[in-house]
Amino acid sequence: MERPRHQGMAKNTNMRWRLPLVCLLWEVAMIVLFGVFVRFGPEADAHWEEEKRELNLTSDMENDFYFRYPSFQDVHVMIFVGFGFLMTFLKRYGFGAVGFNFLLAAFGIQWALLMQGWFHSFKNGKILIGVENLINADFCVGSVCIAFGAILGKTSPIQLLVMTLFQVTLFSVNEYILLNLLHVKDAGGSMTIHTFGAYFGLTVTRILYRPNLEQSKDKQGSVYHSDLFAMIGTLYLWMYWPSFNSAISEHGDAQHRSAINTYCSLAACVLTTMAFSSMLQKKGKLDMVHIQNATLAGGVAVGTSAEMMLTPYGSLIVGSISGIVSTVGYVYFTPFLESRLHIQDTCGIHNLHALPGLIGGIVGAITAAAATEDVYGKEGFIKAFDFTGVYQTRTPSVQGGFQAAGIVVSLLMAFVGGAIVGGILKLPIWGDAAAENCFEDEVYWEVPEDEESDVYHMHNPDKPASP
Amino acid sequence: MERPRHQGMAKNTNMRWRLPLVCLLWEVAMIVLFGVFVRFGPEADAHWEEEKRELNLTSDMENDFYFRYPSFQDVHVMIFVGFGFLMTFLKRYGFGAVGFNFLLAAFGIQWALLMQGWFHSFKNGKILIGVENLINADFCVGSVCIAFGAILGKTSPIQLLVMTLFQVTLFSVNEYILLNLLHVKDAGGSMTIHTFGAYFGLTVTRILYRPNLEQSKDKQGSVYHSDLFAMIGTLYLWMYWPSFNSAISEHGDAQHRSAINTYCSLAACVLTTMAFSSMLQKKGKLDMVHIQNATLAGGVAVGTSAEMMLTPYGSLIVGSISGIVSTVGYVYFTPFLESRLHIQDTCGIHNLHALPGLIGGIVGAITAAAATEDVYGKEGFIKAFDFTGVYQTRTPSVQGGFQAAGIVVSLLMAFVGGAIVGGILKLPIWGDAAAENCFEDEVYWEVPEDEESDVYHMHNPDKPASP
Amino acid sequence: MERPRHQGMAKNTNMRWRLPLVCLLWEVAMIVLFGVFVRFGPEADAHWEEEKRELNLTSDMENDFYFRYPSFQDVHVMIFVGFGFLMTFLKRYGFGAVGFNFLLAAFGIQWALLMQGWFHSFKNGKILIGVENLINADFCVGSVCIAFGAILGKTSPIQLLVMTLFQVTLFSVNEYILLNLLHVKDAGGSMTIHTFGAYFGLTVTRILYRPNLEQSKDKQGSVYHSDLFAMIGTLYLWMYWPSFNSAISEHGDAQHRSAINTYCSLAACVLTTMAFSSMLQKKGKLDMVHIQNATLAGGVAVGTSAEMMLTPYGSLIVGSISGIVSTVGYVYFTPFLESRLHIQDTCGIHNLHALPGLIGGIVGAITAAAATEDVYGKEGFIKAFDFTGVYQTRTPSVQGGFQAAGIVVSLLMAFVGGAIVGGILKLPIWGDAAAENCFEDEVYWEVPEDEESDVYHMHNPDKPASP
Repeated sequence: MERPRHQGMAKNTNMRWRLPLVCLLWEVAMIVLFGVFVRFGPEADAHWEEEKRELNLTSDMENDFYFRYPSFQDVHVMIFVGFGFLMTFLKRYGFGAVGFNFLLAAFGIQWALLMQGWFHSFKNGKILIGVENLINADFCVGSVCIAFGAILGKTSPIQLLVMTLFQVTLFSVNEYILLNLLHVKDAGGSMTIHTFGAYFGLTVTRILYRPNLEQSKDKQGSVYHSDLFAMIGTLYLWMYWPSFNSAISEHGDAQHRSAINTYCSLAACVLTTMAFSSMLQKKGKLDMVHIQNATLAGGVAVGTSAEMMLTPYGSLIVGSISGIVSTVGYVYFTPFLESRLHIQDTCGIHNLHALPGLIGGIVGAITAAAATEDVYGKEGFIKAFDFTGVYQTRTPSVQGGFQAAGIVVSLLMAFVGGAIVGGILKLPIWGDAAAENCFEDEVYWEVPEDEESDVYHMHNPDKPASP
Repeated sequence: MERPRHQGMAKNTNMRWRLPLVCLLWEVAMIVLFGVFVRFGPEADAHWEEEKRELNLTSDMENDFYFRYPSFQDVHVMIFVGFGFLMTFLKRYGFGAVGFNFLLAAFGIQWALLMQGWFHSFKNGKILIGVENLINADFCVGSVCIAFGAILGKTSPIQLLVMTLFQVTLFSVNEYILLNLLHVKDAGGSMTIHTFGAYFGLTVTRILYRPNLEQSKDKQGSVYHSDLFAMIGTLYLWMYWPSFNSAISEHGDAQHRSAINTYCSLAACVLTTMAFSSMLQKKGKLDMVHIQNATLAGGVAVGTSAEMMLTPYGSLIVGSISGIVSTVGYVYFTPFLESRLHIQDTCGIHNLHALPGLIGGIVGAITAAAATEDVYGKEGFIKAFDFTGVYQTRTPSVQGGFQAAGIVVSLLMAFVGGAIVGGILKLPIWGDAAAENCFEDEVYWEVPEDEESDVYHMHNPDKPASP
Repeated sequence: MERPRHQGMAKNTNMRWRLPLVCLLWEVAMIVLFGVFVRFGPEADAHWEEEKRELNLTSDMENDFYFRYPSFQDVHVMIFVGFGFLMTFLKRYGFGAVGFNFLLAAFGIQWALLMQGWFHSFKNGKILIGVENLINADFCVGSVCIAFGAILGKTSPIQLLVMTLFQVTLFSVNEYILLNLLHVKDAGGSMTIHTFGAYFGLTVTRILYRPNLEQSKDKQGSVYHSDLFAMIGTLYLWMYWPSFNSAISEHGDAQHRSAINTYCSLAACVLTTMAFSSMLQKKGKLDMVHIQNATLAGGVAVGTSAEMMLTPYGSLIVGSISGIVSTVGYVYFTPFLESRLHIQDTCGIHNLHALPGLIGGIVGAITAAAATEDVYGKEGFIKAFDFTGVYQTRTPSVQGGFQAAGIVVSLLMAFVGGAIVGGILKLPIWGDAAAENCFEDEVYWEVPEDEESDVYHMHNPDKPASP
């Protein structure tokens, strides 16, 4: 054990000046840019009283805050507790999982408010923000949390910040292309968040391939308690996913419908995940990896179509399929990706986000293509797909085609963007740990020296296991 | 230790084909039935624009989604995180607690949407669902989670699914009798959820009595960390109970009142629980079992009456009493039930749900019987008890009588139903574990082999403690 | 180790009669006082139908319940899970942290409903309560949870209840002086909750100074898992703080604006905290103490000004500064306070609540003084600062002066009140533990005897570590 450890120590993982520098410069930049560009939108501005009169609104209830704030808070919990705790399954990377997720998300939402603001909320030289912008910023950062899952335990916090910076930028461009240029619907982000985020992260981890990663294999697993911490993340993601998919849908029936479809899809997904988890294991035992992850595939897979008239049974079908695909992915695809394609995917985001994201994009395209005025009602049809203005004459089948194009664009952006960003992250200046120190909090965190430590810190170079 | 273990191994607990078969067949059945019956209700359907015009609604805010969705999400958290984590107190059954609760609830809500839909939301051959149906499905499954508490650690996942199937069915029938035939008020489910669910579960566990359960006595306790995990469940149940009791009350004052009454009752309950927990222990130390459970009795005990004019001080009284009854129950009744009546109640649901549920039913009957037009106002009185149509002439005292009848009906359904379902679960085909393997995740779960395992797995038959 | 332990055992920490007596007497008093004084407010009363007609309200949505209930639930989670779990970082005081927090908060909210009710909701001899009262009661108790952080692990549950009784009373008086007499704005409670609560707690812990506390130094740290439990508390506080600061703001734009400002401030705070945590440590490693606490300073520091036109970039600046101040406080001030001023501050509330609370008060005063009709609009200006009635002629700069006066009053109340209450708590009748038994759950809790116990209970006097 001596040699690789010393080899590892040769790598400079000291963050003392690099991390503070990046964080502080970044925050100063944010303050300047927010100062120049960001202002309250009309519904959050103190001029709202006048605005209300102008718009002839009789109640403060008409403020978008009351339509979206509860959903926003649910989404917020998903990003910080959901993703954060889902990744605490590793036995010695709990601080990194929840702490770095916290760092990159807090970093990313500020940049996302700007990037998305320039594209979508820019008026008279100012970005006017409201609760919907907060949700969208959380969404955008969600795609970074997904990508983080692929490289979990193998990167320095600075690498994560650099990745966040670029990924938020690319996310916003991709989102602009899909929503504005292609006029695609994707309220729950099957394409923009999951497909893009996952394939971006997979490309990055491919570029950062570590041939000697088996040196830290003993730390790549879970312990009993870390699996329970991870279940906190899983359940909050699962429970609040109906809010995720409905958070930015149109007021009224669309939000209502999104929540119901997602609820149904997720319920079905749990059953097929449990079925296949048991079936694919010789002794029929359930595997926590599947329960923690594949049960969520149903939420991803209706991300695009939840606000459409997918119907409850349609949701059950989609949820069932995605649970199966995801579980099978964990058993067969992940080992294949690692051994053959050199894609080391710590959390298995390929199974939880990439494949279900693709399913979600396809289901969305089909559901859109199959839409009829009969099913949606004349007004509902126009409202659901926003067939107004220049899109007045677009037909459902054309919309389906554009939806499909959205998948392709997201994939391209992910592959190209991920390759470039992966290349940047490969530079030897970011302070990532050596292979044998991956998945280990001690590298970047003060870890308490406690009575239990002898059990845990066997490989702690500063403290011999047997004195 | 050798003999019983081998005896245990003789039992076939392999789930490999049975569990997948049940899950997949079930999901296919759900898809077919949803396809035939379930559609979006008018407020979730894309025709809502037309509906709005017809109903003369001026704002999307009038969509029921905005009245109930925040409460729905709170209830959702209670079912999956609340019940799930409350049961993680066992030292080696955390995966089973949170995982099987997840499985049975996801299974049950689909069936509940159908069963309750046929009884309450059936129009022109279709079940029309909206957010209130989602809440009711969660409620229905809540009664199964309660019953699960009695048999926790002693049943196979298939037994749980079979029980869920039957219990959801019986719940829906009982609910129909109470709400529609007896015209009883029970918004927070003291009778339909807690009394029914708890006595159903207690009857099932009585039928499944295991005379040799002391063989796994060492695993029936908690460890330090598992008690903290359980507190997550407790607190989420406690905090969100005001949402639970108000989730399906009438819009406006009734929801508002329910939340306040429940808040008050729960606050009082914590104090009396702490008082009796300390008083009933020789050294005056507090017992986590009481804090985790009896503090919640106040929510159960105002389940029926919270939406009535119980008043804040009335809530304090009910909460105080239920905390005392519940704590005393843990100290004296649970051991009595086990030794004399052969009722092995793992989580003590008799103290948390059965007794407080009965209190809740009785308090509801009294509060209803004591109602006057003076206290409620003329319109409020009619609205609170829905004294319209054929019930126009019903008096408060008659209503009180029907409320009391609701308790009796719920008890009968629970005993008879529990006995039948218990008998079915006793069949030797479901793969339950031998007595000495109860309360042990290894039977049905892949458990991580970690450094700590030597401490934990002393009794693991596959791996001797001392090599 | 023998002498101090026996010395410790000489202290009578048995709660058997004292704790039940206090709890039960208290609850009886609450029932009587609620019976005499507390009634439902018009929006929770069954007469609401008539009220609606009188007020010409066309929709149940106008009930304050729908404007505030989602925020109330978020605040509720912050008080019980947020504060409770944040304090579980101690390796052997998890039960006490989450359990005593539960006890004192449940005790305090009842008294707060009365005290605040007499001051703010008293009409015709009755306190009329609604959802806003529930939020305010939670807020009031929040200040006690903060003070609890300073004395965590060193006091008996009875001391905590006595402190709660007095602190809630003083809080309500201070709040009355600020909000009603000085006409100060403080929706998120930088002054009333954080400054008052923190300096009150620091004064109490100064009075209760324990010179021999290093005897329990081994228990004052965290272990790996306890730090993860604490992160649950941190994240829920962080995520829901926008709800905290906006919960009792005016309907519409003020609630909306508060949430946005708080969101921005907190995001910035995370980055500067991470930066300084790394910078101030020789090896550049991050310290969980900072991440768990200083990341929250941004929420405290915009508590007063969040509902004003602070603007998003203003929030970023305030959040950035407060993260730096708080982290520096943990590294330099806390040791100084302990060694020089004999202030033993277990959780470092001086850094998380006291300093950021002062910042918050000052920022509020400046923001108010800088307000113009141009920025707020004519009506918005009057609405934001409630410049009506006798305050019609108050100018922004005068308002700023009164805001500053509010800080001074809060500090005085905290110091004087804390000194008196600290003196009362110093009486030798409350059953606090000896210095060497501090930070140890065994004193007041039944702690499970598990296989792991040999590791943990090294110092357990009843069970020798090596048999």
